[in-house]
Amino acid sequence: MGGNTFGKIFAITTFGESHGPAIGVITDGCPAGLELCEQDIQMELERRKPGQARADGTKNHAVTPRKESDQCQILSGVFEGKTTGTPIAIIIKNETQRSADYSAIKDVFRPGHADYTYHEKYGFRDYRGGGRASGRETAARVAGGAIAKKLLAVSCGVRITSSIIAQPSEEEILALFEQGDSSGGILECIVQGVPVGWGEPVFDKLDAQLAKAALSIGGVKGIEFGAGFKSACMNGSNWNDAMRKPNPGSGESNLFVSNNAGGILGGITNGNDIVFRVVLKPVPSISIPQHTIDIHGHNTEIQVHGRHDICLCTRIAPVLEAMAALVLADAYLENRCARL
Amino acid sequence: MGGNTFGKIFAITTFGESHGPAIGVITDGCPAGLELCEQDIQMELERRKPGQARADGTKNHAVTPRKESDQCQILSGVFEGKTTGTPIAIIIKNETQRSADYSAIKDVFRPGHADYTYHEKYGFRDYRGGGRASGRETAARVAGGAIAKKLLAVSCGVRITSSIIAQPSEEEILALFEQGDSSGGILECIVQGVPVGWGEPVFDKLDAQLAKAALSIGGVKGIEFGAGFKSACMNGSNWNDAMRKPNPGSGESNLFVSNNAGGILGGITNGNDIVFRVVLKPVPSISIPQHTIDIHGHNTEIQVHGRHDICLCTRIAPVLEAMAALVLADAYLENRCARL
Amino acid sequence: MGGNTFGKIFAITTFGESHGPAIGVITDGCPAGLELCEQDIQMELERRKPGQARADGTKNHAVTPRKESDQCQILSGVFEGKTTGTPIAIIIKNETQRSADYSAIKDVFRPGHADYTYHEKYGFRDYRGGGRASGRETAARVAGGAIAKKLLAVSCGVRITSSIIAQPSEEEILALFEQGDSSGGILECIVQGVPVGWGEPVFDKLDAQLAKAALSIGGVKGIEFGAGFKSACMNGSNWNDAMRKPNPGSGESNLFVSNNAGGILGGITNGNDIVFRVVLKPVPSISIPQHTIDIHGHNTEIQVHGRHDICLCTRIAPVLEAMAALVLADAYLENRCARL
Amino acid sequence: MGGNTFGKIFAITTFGESHGPAIGVITDGCPAGLELCEQDIQMELERRKPGQARADGTKNHAVTPRKESDQCQILSGVFEGKTTGTPIAIIIKNETQRSADYSAIKDVFRPGHADYTYHEKYGFRDYRGGGRASGRETAARVAGGAIAKKLLAVSCGVRITSSIIAQPSEEEILALFEQGDSSGGILECIVQGVPVGWGEPVFDKLDAQLAKAALSIGGVKGIEFGAGFKSACMNGSNWNDAMRKPNPGSGESNLFVSNNAGGILGGITNGNDIVFRVVLKPVPSISIPQHTIDIHGHNTEIQVHGRHDICLCTRIAPVLEAMAALVLADAYLENRCARL
Repeated sequence: MGGNTFGKIFAITTFGESHGPAIGVITDGCPAGLELCEQDIQMELERRKPGQARADGTKNHAVTPRKESDQCQILSGVFEGKTTGTPIAIIIKNETQRSADYSAIKDVFRPGHADYTYHEKYGFRDYRGGGRASGRETAARVAGGAIAKKLLAVSCGVRITSSIIAQPSEEEILALFEQGDSSGGILECIVQGVPVGWGEPVFDKLDAQLAKAALSIGGVKGIEFGAGFKSACMNGSNWNDAMRKPNPGSGESNLFVSNNAGGILGGITNGNDIVFRVVLKPVPSISIPQHTIDIHGHNTEIQVHGRHDICLCTRIAPVLEAMAALVLADAYLENRCARL
Repeated sequence: MGGNTFGKIFAITTFGESHGPAIGVITDGCPAGLELCEQDIQMELERRKPGQARADGTKNHAVTPRKESDQCQILSGVFEGKTTGTPIAIIIKNETQRSADYSAIKDVFRPGHADYTYHEKYGFRDYRGGGRASGRETAARVAGGAIAKKLLAVSCGVRITSSIIAQPSEEEILALFEQGDSSGGILECIVQGVPVGWGEPVFDKLDAQLAKAALSIGGVKGIEFGAGFKSACMNGSNWNDAMRKPNPGSGESNLFVSNNAGGILGGITNGNDIVFRVVLKPVPSISIPQHTIDIHGHNTEIQVHGRHDICLCTRIAPVLEAMAALVLADAYLENRCARL
Repeated sequence: MGGNTFGKIFAITTFGESHGPAIGVITDGCPAGLELCEQDIQMELERRKPGQARADGTKNHAVTPRKESDQCQILSGVFEGKTTGTPIAIIIKNETQRSADYSAIKDVFRPGHADYTYHEKYGFRDYRGGGRASGRETAARVAGGAIAKKLLAVSCGVRITSSIIAQPSEEEILALFEQGDSSGGILECIVQGVPVGWGEPVFDKLDAQLAKAALSIGGVKGIEFGAGFKSACMNGSNWNDAMRKPNPGSGESNLFVSNNAGGILGGITNGNDIVFRVVLKPVPSISIPQHTIDIHGHNTEIQVHGRHDICLCTRIAPVLEAMAALVLADAYLENRCARL
Repeated sequence: MGGNTFGKIFAITTFGESHGPAIGVITDGCPAGLELCEQDIQMELERRKPGQARADGTKNHAVTPRKESDQCQILSGVFEGKTTGTPIAIIIKNETQRSADYSAIKDVFRPGHADYTYHEKYGFRDYRGGGRASGRETAARVAGGAIAKKLLAVSCGVRITSSIIAQPSEEEILALFEQGDSSGGILECIVQGVPVGWGEPVFDKLDAQLAKAALSIGGVKGIEFGAGFKSACMNGSNWNDAMRKPNPGSGESNLFVSNNAGGILGGITNGNDIVFRVVLKPVPSISIPQHTIDIHGHNTEIQVHGRHDICLCTRIAPVLEAMAALVLADAYLENRCARL
């Protein structure tokens, strides 16, 4: 397929461009019997919308206000409040499908964007707002991921959260806003409550699947698990997570003394929290002039105007959680087949 | 499937445990007409064997000598020196299938290894040398990857290389060897000669596939592309790779002034070199005593003896290249379907 | 996945129940650059609508009139009249989503329908009009298949047609209508213009894929290629299709003297017309009383009232062609990867 | 992939040509804990070997004696007599890898064989004994299917059998043998003990998967379920399988009065026996002269000499059962994910 389906047993297929009539997602493989309503999905979509409070609770200037209601509608797969085992289609209308003036970017490749690569791969491109390569595509992921999240929470008590651990301060963000510039950042995602044994060995290791899931989000340029890149300077004697029987009566159930592995050994969960971090590149749309070329190969300059975020961290957080939820829901179901 | 197949059009399926009679790989989807012989594969297998010279050319103490001939045999798919379009099976016999004494690790979980997770997932485990979770499994990847590498080289002039950019010095390694400890490291992989347009958008972005490929190698705990984790502290104005028409007569064909993107934009190659780095955890087998539990849940101590590497960098290098080659061979073929 | 995706490179994913707000399809993997508009899809949907003329041209009493406009809307993947390489989502609203009285079938399993099996598999079912198991689901296949058909016609000159070769006469159908009974039938599908070499060997043989495609249509109970079941009584000497060089100047290009193979040898097209036939069971909804059980396991009787077809042949014809088109579009693209 | 993998959760990948060093199969996704030894596989391989007794118990002249020991070896995935959850590789050496004289067929396309289509698809072909298109490939299916069969028997009490219901009499076969001709036939396969609810709806219906499985066997030209092609002349009133509560104390558990559906409704098993029939074309290798062309496009004649079967029924029977077992093992595991 053309890369728009994710997952094996619990799988989503998404569609939609930034400025088409709608975007959406089909979730296939969700077990029957899960209570589900539009509010379950809307709740997650609200977190991804522009102009939200920061994930860490403070007010957020890193994203600029934009008007999108992102109202979702379930078209199938739910009957009398429960999933039926058939595909769950969710549609989100594009309200900002206005006929803006795209003449400035129609024939010019914006640096840091996928304009050039789409143009070269397909021979032409939908230049309106980035088309399929727009961040808008991630709303469909969040919608599908909301179902996975609920499945995991209800069936297994799994809880997925994320936090910003590297982003400019409010003052720096305001300064970048004034300069028409942007900033990168780092998000940390933690998954609690996953039992031992999820994930398949060899090529479909759980960390490999999470890495694919995370890197498939536009703007993510790296991922690390547990001790991550610090592992390069560590020794086996301080990296290996020692095991010990928890003290009876301590309430503790974790067998591991530390968590350098990030909760995964040999691609399979070990019962510890799954911990990983992703790095986000700076928002590529900046109003500072940049050197580039046009579709005829001529040198030119571009300034990208309009409403753009300064840093992607806040808006990507629910997307990252959604992608993690999709990987884990799939691993949860696949693990039902591990033993006789 | 159980996670032992990798790829969509150009795909490998591997099998084999550390101490079974043999390991091997079936490569399916290789186009017909590629000249191929066992030497093409053996060449890459030699690089992965223990006791090799360092990737960077200096003598190597990071890996300890072990005797494995790793002689491959092609069982199918090649006729009169050329691939026929049918599956290419390659088998490598395990010569070190000796009946060693595994009583020390049979009932004890080695920290940093997949012993505990395999045991919990499947109910029991092949404890001889790590079984399927052994690094030995990667020889099959290298064999399949050698075919992908040759296909890419012959058809497109693509060249994949890797180098160690973070590993202890020779002195430090000797010291670790004396202490019975081990070390992590960082590998950088560069792919040259890839044309613009490879990779599928959204979930199957080329960097997402490469991330999955890399993280599926045991011991890899993180990956970053181009500017990678440094992107967190960068701004759009210095991160975005500006474009300009190369000077005629300069011999230069690269349209990009810099390569913070690592050669991939929106999941699709932009014609720049693909550049990524992976971090390897320290070899988990160390002879320093470690706290752990046994299969009955009792606290115990373990010292892992035997012939073990100090650092995985040298031996993982050809594996990483093989996995990159598999991703790229698949992307190359899939891209044949992008346009009318 | 839960069985709602079909195809490997050119793939569709469908959703929707008989009485939900809408049904639809996402087509992924269609090459960029194909001219496509809603009329291309609507044209095929019209053929599937109830109350159409018979495929063989005569007036049709085999299907009873029902009011559905089946108006399709393209939501994504087409820009300035051409496919962009991104997923093409098509939605068809359910206009007959009226609140009919389903109390008669809510707790009773209709013989010949999937009521019992869905109930047992999923624990409950959407009983309104058959839910996902309704024939309505096939409209989404026809929409996706219309794109495949156009791709094949434009790119390769492939032409797919079908005809009814076994269905009751008009008089017999009128008599069945009076009795509240129904009838089976046989459809023949012919694909012209396929070049030699499409289809993959072993498990993905073209006839195997066509068989899966056809049998996935509700009501199809068998398929045969070329000489089909007659082959049982034939000998190699009269079954084997002899080959001979066409007479120069004869305008003939077919190398085969006969077509008992139905255009496929070893799972790969041989340049002859692809010919296959499928048998359709009688429409299961009949108003004659039938013995059955209810969801509590008690014996009962049921008479299925309402507007139902007598024979499925006419309405299934475009669905069968759509499924054949999907298989062939996939084979066409996959074959681009057969050779260096 | 190139069509050499079959299955989704329980999957096999096969390799090998008629005259290469070996053929084999990797079975991935078999749950851990199944007792398995080489004898389990050898038992099924024996049934496929040339010169066996007929499936119906009488002596068999339909197949001519050939010497192949078909000794299988398990290379991985089994430890201490039980499957470990890792891929199970099985290899079967080709003993008849002798350097026979293939000059007669090297440049000539045998009618009824895949010579021409392979040559055109791939540009050249392994002409020795049919290469990958040889019936020898099916031994690998039987080996993988033997594991599926055992899994189904042990876990669910499922029993798969087949019988010849249309094949020439012994006298007719002897006459065909004298004439150098061959014959077609029909096999019926019955699966007993499958619970209600296996199979996925829409595209992955169980009958669709079985149809693909059966038609992927070389020589199968059609399949029908339950009433099959007779359905064309039936009415809903006599086709629909009525349901009734079994009499308490009767020992009967079947809810259905008849079995025109062949045990599958809406693609999902209904608890009745699964019943289907396949038609086999006459063995294409006959010693009667046939018109054909050579690889240069010139008209010529061919007589195919050597040891060939008269009718495929006996040898295909275990292959058909193996393919059915693979489909059912996959459906069994996939059904574990149907409900919360």
